[in-house]
Amino acid sequence: MALISEHIEGDTRERILEVAERLFRLIGYQKTTVGDIAKELRMSPANVYRFFESKKAIHQAVARGLMGEVELEAQRIVAKPGPVKERFRELLTTVHRMNTERYVGDNKLHEMVEIAMQEDWAVCVNHMECIAGVVGQMIAQGVASGEFEAPDLQLAALCACTAMMRFFHPQMIAQCATKPGPTIDQMIDFVIAGLSPRH
Amino acid sequence: MALISEHIEGDTRERILEVAERLFRLIGYQKTTVGDIAKELRMSPANVYRFFESKKAIHQAVARGLMGEVELEAQRIVAKPGPVKERFRELLTTVHRMNTERYVGDNKLHEMVEIAMQEDWAVCVNHMECIAGVVGQMIAQGVASGEFEAPDLQLAALCACTAMMRFFHPQMIAQCATKPGPTIDQMIDFVIAGLSPRH
Repeated sequence: MALISEHIEGDTRERILEVAERLFRLIGYQKTTVGDIAKELRMSPANVYRFFESKKAIHQAVARGLMGEVELEAQRIVAKPGPVKERFRELLTTVHRMNTERYVGDNKLHEMVEIAMQEDWAVCVNHMECIAGVVGQMIAQGVASGEFEAPDLQLAALCACTAMMRFFHPQMIAQCATKPGPTIDQMIDFVIAGLSPRH
Repeated sequence: MALISEHIEGDTRERILEVAERLFRLIGYQKTTVGDIAKELRMSPANVYRFFESKKAIHQAVARGLMGEVELEAQRIVAKPGPVKERFRELLTTVHRMNTERYVGDNKLHEMVEIAMQEDWAVCVNHMECIAGVVGQMIAQGVASGEFEAPDLQLAALCACTAMMRFFHPQMIAQCATKPGPTIDQMIDFVIAGLSPRH
């Protein structure tokens, strides 16, 4: 019985997050109320509050979910076989593509990102550290295969991610889309050059 | 007589811009009115409007002035003698330092930057292109001296500037100051590595 009820509770939590994400996308984070989310789920706001103490807590969980998908995909690319440089390019391109899909353009999730960046930096910093960690693992593989040279892996990963800011950071993706600059492939070439061995 | 009156007119223009910049710094762009600027100069608002058709025109001229100082200093570094890598580092560090002094911190000029970025992208894009041009000249000197390798100078300059976004872009300087990341010297090392010849 305990297991079943835990299962149902987890299920309800997931459903709240799904509906919240959909409403945030559709009408924006600010305009969505806990009441809207409850109504959509045909439950009482009080029931939503049993799972999340505030709209902010829902926001955090939705943000974690969205960022978690990017992290999972990044980890999948690092774990699969193949030449490092190709997978390195795939990794950086995937982070760019997924961040663009999630936070830029017509959908209103960019509002959520702005709020996360103002109020909830810990969630963002954890995500950036996770992505930098995965990039570091990939660079380590490149060092092992002789494709890369990096005396300090963590620093190399931080520099590679910082160099990609125009393509990773949601606000920069949106702001730079129509501004002069390198393509993402050109930028990745530049980062790979910075990591390549000099004999 | 014509020369004298032109001189006086130019002088008045300069004085309006000086006062406007001081007020923008002190009380912010939004809160400063053309009336405030006129009062400070002991002239009528109508006289200010003889020189600038709107507050926006004053804003543009102040922004151009601030950016022009950075451009001038960058050009000075490119023109002086000495090893390229040292001057390249000095160039990137100077752009970072001057942008930080101008737009970040206690003074309220960051409000002006935000408005320029929303409404007045041409001014910002021109400035970015000018800085990329100077960075390109420096890379060309490095190619000539054998310190750098760059088959496409313009692309190399764009990539170098893009890689430095965390340290060049006023909003990113402000946002990243307390976030994990490389130091500017570490980032410049990474950019130099990307430009260094591979034999």
